[in-house]
Amino acid sequence: MKLPSCGTRPPPKSARCTPVSTSSTIDLHDLPLFDHHCHGVITKDVDRDEFEALISESSRPATEGTTRFDSQVGFQILANCAPLLDLPSFCTPEEYLARRTELGAAEVNKRLLRAANIAVYGIETGHDAGRINGPADMAEIADAHSCEIVRLERLAEQVIERVRDRADAGSAELLAEIERELDARLETAVGVKTIAAYRIGFDFEDARPAASELEASAARLLATSGSLRLDDPVMIRQLIWLAIDRACVIQVHVGYGDDDVDLHRCNPLLLTRLLRATVDSGARFTLLHCYPFHREAGYLADVFPHVYFDVGLGVNYTGSRSEAVIAESLELAPFGKILFSSDAWGASELYYLGAMLFRRGLTAALERFTQLDAWPREQSLGVARMIGYENAARLYGFDPLVRQAQ
Amino acid sequence: MKLPSCGTRPPPKSARCTPVSTSSTIDLHDLPLFDHHCHGVITKDVDRDEFEALISESSRPATEGTTRFDSQVGFQILANCAPLLDLPSFCTPEEYLARRTELGAAEVNKRLLRAANIAVYGIETGHDAGRINGPADMAEIADAHSCEIVRLERLAEQVIERVRDRADAGSAELLAEIERELDARLETAVGVKTIAAYRIGFDFEDARPAASELEASAARLLATSGSLRLDDPVMIRQLIWLAIDRACVIQVHVGYGDDDVDLHRCNPLLLTRLLRATVDSGARFTLLHCYPFHREAGYLADVFPHVYFDVGLGVNYTGSRSEAVIAESLELAPFGKILFSSDAWGASELYYLGAMLFRRGLTAALERFTQLDAWPREQSLGVARMIGYENAARLYGFDPLVRQAQ
Amino acid sequence: MKLPSCGTRPPPKSARCTPVSTSSTIDLHDLPLFDHHCHGVITKDVDRDEFEALISESSRPATEGTTRFDSQVGFQILANCAPLLDLPSFCTPEEYLARRTELGAAEVNKRLLRAANIAVYGIETGHDAGRINGPADMAEIADAHSCEIVRLERLAEQVIERVRDRADAGSAELLAEIERELDARLETAVGVKTIAAYRIGFDFEDARPAASELEASAARLLATSGSLRLDDPVMIRQLIWLAIDRACVIQVHVGYGDDDVDLHRCNPLLLTRLLRATVDSGARFTLLHCYPFHREAGYLADVFPHVYFDVGLGVNYTGSRSEAVIAESLELAPFGKILFSSDAWGASELYYLGAMLFRRGLTAALERFTQLDAWPREQSLGVARMIGYENAARLYGFDPLVRQAQ
Repeated sequence: MKLPSCGTRPPPKSARCTPVSTSSTIDLHDLPLFDHHCHGVITKDVDRDEFEALISESSRPATEGTTRFDSQVGFQILANCAPLLDLPSFCTPEEYLARRTELGAAEVNKRLLRAANIAVYGIETGHDAGRINGPADMAEIADAHSCEIVRLERLAEQVIERVRDRADAGSAELLAEIERELDARLETAVGVKTIAAYRIGFDFEDARPAASELEASAARLLATSGSLRLDDPVMIRQLIWLAIDRACVIQVHVGYGDDDVDLHRCNPLLLTRLLRATVDSGARFTLLHCYPFHREAGYLADVFPHVYFDVGLGVNYTGSRSEAVIAESLELAPFGKILFSSDAWGASELYYLGAMLFRRGLTAALERFTQLDAWPREQSLGVARMIGYENAARLYGFDPLVRQAQ
Repeated sequence: MKLPSCGTRPPPKSARCTPVSTSSTIDLHDLPLFDHHCHGVITKDVDRDEFEALISESSRPATEGTTRFDSQVGFQILANCAPLLDLPSFCTPEEYLARRTELGAAEVNKRLLRAANIAVYGIETGHDAGRINGPADMAEIADAHSCEIVRLERLAEQVIERVRDRADAGSAELLAEIERELDARLETAVGVKTIAAYRIGFDFEDARPAASELEASAARLLATSGSLRLDDPVMIRQLIWLAIDRACVIQVHVGYGDDDVDLHRCNPLLLTRLLRATVDSGARFTLLHCYPFHREAGYLADVFPHVYFDVGLGVNYTGSRSEAVIAESLELAPFGKILFSSDAWGASELYYLGAMLFRRGLTAALERFTQLDAWPREQSLGVARMIGYENAARLYGFDPLVRQAQ
Repeated sequence: MKLPSCGTRPPPKSARCTPVSTSSTIDLHDLPLFDHHCHGVITKDVDRDEFEALISESSRPATEGTTRFDSQVGFQILANCAPLLDLPSFCTPEEYLARRTELGAAEVNKRLLRAANIAVYGIETGHDAGRINGPADMAEIADAHSCEIVRLERLAEQVIERVRDRADAGSAELLAEIERELDARLETAVGVKTIAAYRIGFDFEDARPAASELEASAARLLATSGSLRLDDPVMIRQLIWLAIDRACVIQVHVGYGDDDVDLHRCNPLLLTRLLRATVDSGARFTLLHCYPFHREAGYLADVFPHVYFDVGLGVNYTGSRSEAVIAESLELAPFGKILFSSDAWGASELYYLGAMLFRRGLTAALERFTQLDAWPREQSLGVARMIGYENAARLYGFDPLVRQAQ
């Protein structure tokens, strides 16, 4: 287990353009990657329906008469994951799944995660955590480093569920307990994540909640029963402002995702006022995925010094077309503000494809820029290292590769 | 006349990836196409002003000092339609129009429609039907099959105009008559279309109208006089819900179109709640054209099993750039959810260009995917057959090619 | 000084596709360019912080640990401007800035502006005019022609500041004085510009203000003190309608810009109703920059005969990726409705890059179209001449090249 203590943060170091000189063309196969936003993998074997559900953001089965394998991500699995399981490229889905079962989930996960060649996993632990493994196990399986990102809404749900059964618990206790829990988690976690996109959309009031609003919100939440799905706008704003006060790195789900998102309410431009209000707070925001609003995200990362973004999920799922999405992410934003993530959850195929497609798309873009504007090899590699690893290491204050080298 | 009876629907068959093996490269010239949304052609000769109006979505003449021929679609006509009229590529507009008149509309239509090599035309009959021909004539001219799509708003306008002159007609009679007329049309039509985009925008209330709302709406409409342009939000919602109750395929105009559209109110994401509410209704929605919101449409087709989309109109009109639009349509959506249409109206050039540019753009995309990820020829052709024909045949339950082969 | 009298407008001439035949491939190095929207250059030497601020739309310094040189525009400067200052391509930022100081601002401006090879500069004089030079100086430095565009909001601010100190000045005097000042400026200026995008967003009431609204607005503005930043929606609407009444060319900032813009309120589609209401007014609108809404702008330029657009600022700042943005601007809009601009301000690098990247991206697009659809060389060059120069010359009624040739 190589998991370093995530809470001990080395001092930020400035962006570097480290020249790497091994051959005469751009080769990013060994580019260190910091996957700053992903989740754990499922460690049990899955059947076909479960697997098809894992390779789609839809909560529904595939349309009658179709299969999830007939899609960009499905073709990627058959094209590029099959050989890692000793199968020919473009075997049938049935052959792929049979072989997956034959090898067993543990072996499949190990092969695919190690082939992904990701150096650091930033694991967000708040989504359906019971079904997947955690940061330490991920590091072990992948022979890599990992750190944790805390999902704010899940943290609050857990605290509320715990506090509401106590006889003496009022609003003030709940609010204090949420702060205590957040502080405790931030002892080791390197950042937080919000899914305000799913729960309330981005057209929310951006100001810090007033005390009276907060008290009413806490009282409402204490009066709930059963399994809680937090969608109270006041409490979600409060969680974001607690993270701002703590100068956290705040990951924000943006754009494309599950079908319970109202995508037009997840345009990151709707966050403009919040971003403007927090520019000097010390907090930093990373806009995740962003498809199809990645150009809008690039604009925000350009004009706001505390905003970063990635095209995560939009890479895996656009497959053979991901080179276009990656190229479009390299427009307005300074190279020091672009990050890599896979946003993979559950299926180890998604980590491998996220990393492989990202390396490939970035290589293609850099080669085109070199062709057009004679970018020197050192500069191309420097940009790749920033986006692939260094920006995240600096942002999260977590740089195990440097520590390892020392 | 090869028009089969559209009302008799064969049972849906599942999506296939039929291998087609004739040569070693991807050649889609003979790919069967199901143009699931287009209109009839004008059968009389047109002058220059009329022709320029036909090749633009603007209701206005070209800006002074410019001509509609100086555009992507204009250049396409000179480049690729001129040779079909025995003219050199890039003759002048004057030469093109003179030759068009010399040959006569009938001969021009026959040449261009047959060159389009479209197997099935899904003809939407509700737009300015007096100026163009109908499904049977289209099948005859093109030596192809056809079926009908009914425009909901036009159907309602016709019923209202008929009913409001009757002495005894009240709201209840009007509402019942609309249902009867819809049922009668669905005896033969394979689907319906709504132009809610033009008339009320997509930010409409998505719930089924209440009885009291409906009665008031019907009373308002009965009190109108003269030629009716239906833009009553309650009645348009009612029409959509009647189609949902009948588990219809509902074509929805989305995005780019005439200048009476407020394009920002035609973003398909605004339909999210309606789509979520109808996911188990049995109705299916096809989002038409979608430019510049085709990535948003692809997302909806991914997460909602009853949503399909095409980039129809955006192909003809972007001409030499249509390869980019087609490639962008091949990202999130499963291959079983993407359709082909030309959305052509009036000018036979638009059907030919729609089909030719679609085949060309799809070929280019598939060749790129093959280059990147070694898509086998069988898989590429299978995807092309799904998008070009099979998805629509399955969706509309109308598959004359299979019937022909039997 | 070659500045012609901008007020004397030659009669509009129709769009031409002038064949230019010198070689067998498309070469746009000598394509005449009418940069219809830019500003003056800074004539004093700048230090590193000032220079980094000039090459970004952000009002903030670069994020700690990063530099503005690590961006598309920064790499463009090192790649393509450095050689014009006798430096090797991709020298360091330090070397570049040292050489810039060594040569002095006057020499640097002269070299870069002359290398830009822009024939006509349309100079918008209302943004921070004290720091930059004016139209006549720009023409002198660049050995080119220039004309002036008046910023409406700045004009009103100046009039208000002047009028409010007069004892006798009431609302009526202020409103009349604004009209008089506008008429005086239009004696020589060729058009106006509005920054409603920044000040009020495009979701404003589009109707002409009522007299009572106007009087109240004027009274409010007369009651202000100190330096005025006009953001009164009524007065801004009034300025736009004054320009409409005068059948002006009205430049509208759209999309990407400084961080005081709420980008989602700057989607040009939000202007649809205003554009529809003014289609027969004689006024013409040019939508500036538009990124990332350039496809939306192309749609508006297609359906509304009085709407034009460019991708100005989005070219400089996307650098090696600008070919994609330029290609995307060549979709729906007729070729007679697309314009060129650099939107450069302050740094002469931005004019050079705007022109160079535009020529390069347009060449690439035309070569692709030629490859796909055999566009004849004459047609490609004709389209380039329209977009680069002729559309603007016709639109603004300002065509010094023709006058020169006569």
